[in-house]
Amino acid sequence: MVSFTVYKGSKDGSIVKSSTSKSDLKGDQVLLRVTASGVCGTDEHYRRQDMVLGHEGCGVVEAVGPAVRHLKKGDRVGWGYEHDSCGTCDWCLSGRETFCPERAMYGFADLDQGSFATHAVWKETFLFPLPGELTDEEAAPLMCGGATVFNALHMYDIQPTSRVGVIGIGGLGHLAIQFAAKMGCDVVSFSGTDSKKEEAMKLGAKEFFATKGVKELNIGKKVDCLLVTTSAQPDWNLYLPLMAPDSVIFPLSVAGGDFKVPYMPLILSGIRIQGSIVAPRLIHRQMLEFAARNGIKPIMMKFPMNEAGITKAMKTLNDGEMRYRGVLVPEQKA
Amino acid sequence: MVSFTVYKGSKDGSIVKSSTSKSDLKGDQVLLRVTASGVCGTDEHYRRQDMVLGHEGCGVVEAVGPAVRHLKKGDRVGWGYEHDSCGTCDWCLSGRETFCPERAMYGFADLDQGSFATHAVWKETFLFPLPGELTDEEAAPLMCGGATVFNALHMYDIQPTSRVGVIGIGGLGHLAIQFAAKMGCDVVSFSGTDSKKEEAMKLGAKEFFATKGVKELNIGKKVDCLLVTTSAQPDWNLYLPLMAPDSVIFPLSVAGGDFKVPYMPLILSGIRIQGSIVAPRLIHRQMLEFAARNGIKPIMMKFPMNEAGITKAMKTLNDGEMRYRGVLVPEQKA
Repeated sequence: MVSFTVYKGSKDGSIVKSSTSKSDLKGDQVLLRVTASGVCGTDEHYRRQDMVLGHEGCGVVEAVGPAVRHLKKGDRVGWGYEHDSCGTCDWCLSGRETFCPERAMYGFADLDQGSFATHAVWKETFLFPLPGELTDEEAAPLMCGGATVFNALHMYDIQPTSRVGVIGIGGLGHLAIQFAAKMGCDVVSFSGTDSKKEEAMKLGAKEFFATKGVKELNIGKKVDCLLVTTSAQPDWNLYLPLMAPDSVIFPLSVAGGDFKVPYMPLILSGIRIQGSIVAPRLIHRQMLEFAARNGIKPIMMKFPMNEAGITKAMKTLNDGEMRYRGVLVPEQKA
Repeated sequence: MVSFTVYKGSKDGSIVKSSTSKSDLKGDQVLLRVTASGVCGTDEHYRRQDMVLGHEGCGVVEAVGPAVRHLKKGDRVGWGYEHDSCGTCDWCLSGRETFCPERAMYGFADLDQGSFATHAVWKETFLFPLPGELTDEEAAPLMCGGATVFNALHMYDIQPTSRVGVIGIGGLGHLAIQFAAKMGCDVVSFSGTDSKKEEAMKLGAKEFFATKGVKELNIGKKVDCLLVTTSAQPDWNLYLPLMAPDSVIFPLSVAGGDFKVPYMPLILSGIRIQGSIVAPRLIHRQMLEFAARNGIKPIMMKFPMNEAGITKAMKTLNDGEMRYRGVLVPEQKA
């Protein structure tokens, strides 16, 4: 039996400190001490739920269950949105376990724990050993933000010869620019104002366009691939004319309502709209290796892992002031 | 100098007999005598334009220009939506000349001729020799309708192991069922009422669902691929729940306005919406070979190639009475 501190959402949106108990480790369960957690827009989304928040976790193994095969005490690992899958459906067997009908996902399963906590217990098979090139704090934002943008580029075969547009320079966008640039792509960055221009170019964008109040964009050569990383959906009358024939749009925002684009331009240019989520495990692992090898790191702001720190991090995110990913670290380190 | 009869649209929507003259054949131009023409929904779309209608043509070569390399007098050939492309852009060089910025397409270029005519002059490189297994009349509906549905299935790598849904049993749908079934796919057919059920099953569908007035469909195993061949866009609240994770939707309808689908289901299931048009030439040729080898033939209603015949064919189509593709044949044969 082990008990640890967790931080939950609540009806009025305040962050509540609580405690979770787990029985002795069974099967391939692993007990971790959390060393860092990213703060993501979807945490805000679940803020009014009675559930433990956080899904960009990194930690150190404290104990392992009897069936654990590879991990041992002291290993550094991370985890993300998915905690389990059936292992035998068509999607699990084809390396797409993120689509398993029995997938255990943040917000839907294991609501009694998350990465806003001192500890967590997860299955070994859904943990990712961290490369030595990345600190725990650097690795945390890759567990969802990094995995999401890398997955779009990699699972769907975006080519190094592609011209890649990234809308939004935030938690996802500032990683998308880096990944695409390090893949050798020609990266074009879009943001509301010029305020992030210099940073976008430093991260690897070759061109930058400010879009606030703009009715028409002239970007020269059209883009083969467009990642939408803003929290709201963009104005498609502005962006659809920028799409090359046979190009692909990844709407990565989490938003309600309908997806709505002008119909005939979509057909006549053979444009693809590709729904896409976080990476399945193989691609997640490849993402970590790729980031480590190519020096891809998040730009972060740190906050202490407690009610006040979490509240402040989420306010910073909501105010549009995060540069570019919030990371929670244990109180004694903060 | 050659003159021939053509049939044009007009402001009031009536079909007008006219005449087109072409100077002596230059370069790789080929003069054809039209032997059959399909009647497609997009002809209706251009009916009020001052342009020659028809883009599912078959004919016999009557004369060839000085640079023609392979065709000779008497050869049977067909042509479709595209008449020319630049030959050197990224899309032409990658076998996707349907996306060439200089593409010459029906409705946009060569408005002085079409397949509603006695003759036409086209470039050899955009003509397709017809397989012996298909008559000119059988081949005509494949030039756009067949090419469009085959292209969706083939260009985008739909697998023979896929469960393929086809919405609508008309000019495109009745060919889509055949192509997918002969590729070995598990074909599910959707139509308003039961009236076409028997025929759909004969064409190769394994299951059939009538959708009129239905609020929820239970089709068991979900589909990996869905071809929308109806003239109007379907109710996505009905169809989106039928899509398997990581599946693809081909909206093949020609329609105005916006394409609108519920957003989060699209993202969470990793669904792809793929804009798609007619086939580039390699795939068009593969489509003809595939149809010939596998005995795929349109079910057709014949009409004479004159004002009255064309008018009647278009009325039959508009009334929803076409079973399943109208084909115009020269007056003396009708």
